[in-house]
This record gives sequence, structure tokens and C-alpha cells, in this order.
Amino acid sequence: MQLQVLLVAGTHGNEINGIFLFDQWEKSPLLINTHGIKTCKVIGNPEAQKAGKRYIHQDLNRSFREESILSINSSNFERSRANELVNLYGEEGENPCQIALDFHTTTASMGSCLVVYGRRDADLALASLIQNKLGLPIYLHESDQKQTGFLVESWPCGLVIEIGPIGQGLLNSRIISQTKLILETLMEQIQQVQNLTFYTPEKLIIHRHIKSIDFPRDEQGKIDGYVHFLRQSKDWQKLKKNDELFFKLNGEIIRFEEEESYVPVFINEAAYVEKDIAMSFTKKELWDFKKEWKQSLIDLVHQK
Amino acid sequence: MQLQVLLVAGTHGNEINGIFLFDQWEKSPLLINTHGIKTCKVIGNPEAQKAGKRYIHQDLNRSFREESILSINSSNFERSRANELVNLYGEEGENPCQIALDFHTTTASMGSCLVVYGRRDADLALASLIQNKLGLPIYLHESDQKQTGFLVESWPCGLVIEIGPIGQGLLNSRIISQTKLILETLMEQIQQVQNLTFYTPEKLIIHRHIKSIDFPRDEQGKIDGYVHFLRQSKDWQKLKKNDELFFKLNGEIIRFEEEESYVPVFINEAAYVEKDIAMSFTKKELWDFKKEWKQSLIDLVHQK
Repeated sequence: MQLQVLLVAGTHGNEINGIFLFDQWEKSPLLINTHGIKTCKVIGNPEAQKAGKRYIHQDLNRSFREESILSINSSNFERSRANELVNLYGEEGENPCQIALDFHTTTASMGSCLVVYGRRDADLALASLIQNKLGLPIYLHESDQKQTGFLVESWPCGLVIEIGPIGQGLLNSRIISQTKLILETLMEQIQQVQNLTFYTPEKLIIHRHIKSIDFPRDEQGKIDGYVHFLRQSKDWQKLKKNDELFFKLNGEIIRFEEEESYVPVFINEAAYVEKDIAMSFTKKELWDFKKEWKQSLIDLVHQK
Repeated sequence: MQLQVLLVAGTHGNEINGIFLFDQWEKSPLLINTHGIKTCKVIGNPEAQKAGKRYIHQDLNRSFREESILSINSSNFERSRANELVNLYGEEGENPCQIALDFHTTTASMGSCLVVYGRRDADLALASLIQNKLGLPIYLHESDQKQTGFLVESWPCGLVIEIGPIGQGLLNSRIISQTKLILETLMEQIQQVQNLTFYTPEKLIIHRHIKSIDFPRDEQGKIDGYVHFLRQSKDWQKLKKNDELFFKLNGEIIRFEEEESYVPVFINEAAYVEKDIAMSFTKKELWDFKKEWKQSLIDLVHQK
């Protein structure tokens, strides 16, 4: 069986730069250099795209849960869509793909980064290769009971690409260029794995998810403070005790009180307000690159 | 009859910084210095706010047309709401207001600015006073058949306040501070008109609307180019012949071909994509401040 990579844009219907890039690519097949790797490209949530919204009934990128996938008929659009995508492009699907790459944008100043969900060997290997080429940060999302059911988890290997800051529903030349660069770098590295010509780094820099924090709220549970201007757009920058977190219009400053220091990410992501997340805290760690990661990715790419 | 000023936030449900400011003000009545001016503050489109959208059925800020206002019962939420707002707070309404101030945000890099619709004397007078205090630009929207039915046109005097750039659905400390500053300056100037202690400038700088232009589109009418990075965020900056306008992924650059030079505004406003507007062109003009503008504003503020 030939390796095939699933490329998803518009998993959130109002993150449109990837969708635009795919549309243009459809018209000009030479626009993206896939380095000879076979790809399937798909719009994750076309209904939400038409509506100009993140989703119709629920966040598609939290809908890939086993119990959802099993329920074939559902009046919930995203549950049905998750099921459909796995049936079409899953490892055992009609048009099987072994690796899924899910292209997102964020209103936070995350720059270009990758997100991996849990510690799967092949994910960590592929992320390491990209970090080694482009130097971008990797956010390891794990141990978060409130946030599960991500698309890429339904494939044997998968990464989320997050690029920001960009407002929802906005096309931006910089964001499109960044998306194109990461996409082509991913294809190049997968080709090198296929040809066994790839170079693995000795270390992987990981920003490991610790927890998310909510906005300040009043007695009724309404948000009554916003991200302090000294924290706004300071994703990936270390937060220490007494640093400013939030600001209230009565002049009150809410500071970070813990002794631990963290690196905040997804600061003021518009779509996370409904998830009660003002930002997430990570720990920056230097990990040794493990042989078994490499082997896992080779096995996946070379499977017959 | 005592002068009363209508303050509207959230006319577009996903422009939330003004709504946040009003919420905080509700809790802390001393938060905003209204300089003794009586105000009514209202959320323009609370249904759209709950849904996290610009509007439910149609843009509320294009729904204040005579024929809409006359149709009392309507299954179209925004038409009903426009009617309701005029019945409640119009000049002849239950709780009459003479001046309407409508607080918006934009994804374009407009900074803080005012929009006036047409050339009503009192609007131009009030806008001049604010420009004289804060130095901000004024966009005169007129002669645009495609865009009519603005909220403030249903009051004897009214201004739109636009502040950006900010993504839809995002709270930002800078935007909130700018909103508060303009609101308090407006109140201060209205008080000075009431006390006849105000100072009128000799000149008014106007950016007069000429036309709007669409994105480049393919044969199917789909957008196939985006704002060139040299044009992005360059609102209020002069555009000359041969300057870059749009960029296509095939490398093609679409340039501005006219001999006339213009000043573009609302470049890449996310909500205008559905209106087929990539940006609008204005002419910068220096107008003499007219005595009749001043008299009109005095008459309005001092009417019994």
C-alpha cells in the first residue's frame, strides 16, 4: 500500500487561510511541492465554512471520540462529520491515509507552531524533523480531561499546525505563506523518511501542557477582566511570580501568584472564551530524541 | 426636555469590547465620566451577541431603513430590533434620545476614528469637536447606494466610532481603553456645547468615501487573491498608481491602475468580505468649519 497523507484545512470553518490555499492549489496543481508524496486534501467542516462559523453544533476538533465515531447516524453535524472523515480517510477507510495534518489558525500570537496530542512515537519523530528544519516550537497537549477528541488522534500519526495571530474569517498573506512553508516542509521530511535520507536531531524542545486558566469572573460568572496589555501577544514568553495576568476596569491588576514559572500559550484565543480558557500554561523541556520514535515513523511510512 | 444621548455597543454581536465596557460600567457607575450628560446605554444586537455572530438574519447596521422601520412585525430579527430601538430611544420614542453614538470595532488597522453618514450639520459639528480634541480621522460615508440603513441615521445627530485592528470576538485592553477615551471625550464635548463653552476649529479634515473595491475573483466568482502584504494594515495611507493591491498565489500582483490617488480605509475588514468589499477608497479633503454646523448642534442640545 502506498503511503498517503491526509491534509485537512477548515476543521474550524472560520479559519480560512488554509482553505484558501487548498482552493488555489486545486486550481494550480503545481502550487504546492508535495515532494512526490500522495496526499488527500479535504475541508474539515464545509458546513461551518459556509456559515462563517467555527462549527455548527459542536467543535469538530473535539468530536473524534470513540463513542462519537461509533454513532453512525446523528443529528449533530460534527459528530456525523467526524465519523464520515474516519470512514473516508482513516487507516481502515475507503481511501486510507496513515498520517493526518490538520491546518489551523489562532487569534493568539503563536507564530508558526506544531501541536502534538499525547506522546505517540511517530508524532514526536515527525515533529522533531520539522522543528529541526524550521526551528518552531512544539506544544505537547496531554493530561487535559476537559479537552479530548482531536482529529489527528484518529490517525496513526498526526500533527496540528497552528499559525497566528490572525482574526477569524480573515485572509492574510503572511499566514498563507507560513502555511505553505510548513506544508511543503512536512512533505519534504516525509519524503526523506520514505527515502531513508532524513536526519534526526539529538534533542527535541517541548512545551508541555500543564493547565489552562480562566478569565476573572464576577459573582454571576461573567468575565470581568481581560488579558493585561503586558501579557497580550506574549505567547511563548516566560511568566514569573508577580507578573501581570489580567486587568479589571476598576484598575485592579491580577498577577500570577505561583512560585512555579510557566510559559503561556494561546493567550486570548477568541474561540477558547467559550471553553473558559484565557490562556494555557506549559513547561519548556529538552527531551532526548529516542530511537523508537524514529523507528515508529519509518515503520508507518514504509508499511506495505 | 433634557438632552439624552443614546450609547450603543454590540450593534454587531461579535464586536465585544464596547459591550464589555458597558457591562463594567453598569457594575461601577463611576467608571465612565459622562460630564453630567444623561445617557441611555444599550446592547444593539443582544441575540447576535449570544450567538457570537455579527447578526442573526441581516446586518442590524444596514436595517434602519424607512420601509423596515414601518414594518412593525417581522420574522427578521434585525428588522424588528431596528424598529424596537427607534420606538424605545428615537427622538419620538418612549425614552427619547437626540444624539446616538454607536461603538464598533474593525479587523482593519483603522486606529480610532469616527464615521459620519452624509453631511448633516450637527454630525459634522460634533465630529469636528472630537477631531479637534483627539486628532483622529473622520470617514464621510455618502453616495453609496449599496450601503444604506445605518443606525445613527435614525437619530437627529449620530456618529459611529470605529476602533481597530481587533479580531471578532476578542477582548483587548488597548481597544477598551481607546473606546473609553472617545466615549468620555464625546461626553465632555457635548457638555461644553450645553454650557456654550466649546471651541470650534477652523477646519475639518474629512476622508470622503469615493467607492469600494472587491477582491479579485475567478470565473466562478470565488475570491482568488488576497490583500498584498504591502497594502495590509496601511489604512489611511495614500495609494498611487502602480502600488500593489492584491496578490495571487500564482505570483501575479494586481496593482492600482488609476491616475487618481486615493486613501484606502477598511482594508481587509473580515465582515465586509460578504459585502464584496476588500477595501474602500476615500479622498482626503480640508473643509472650512461652517457656522450653521455649530448652530445646528447648539439647537439640538438646547432644544426644550
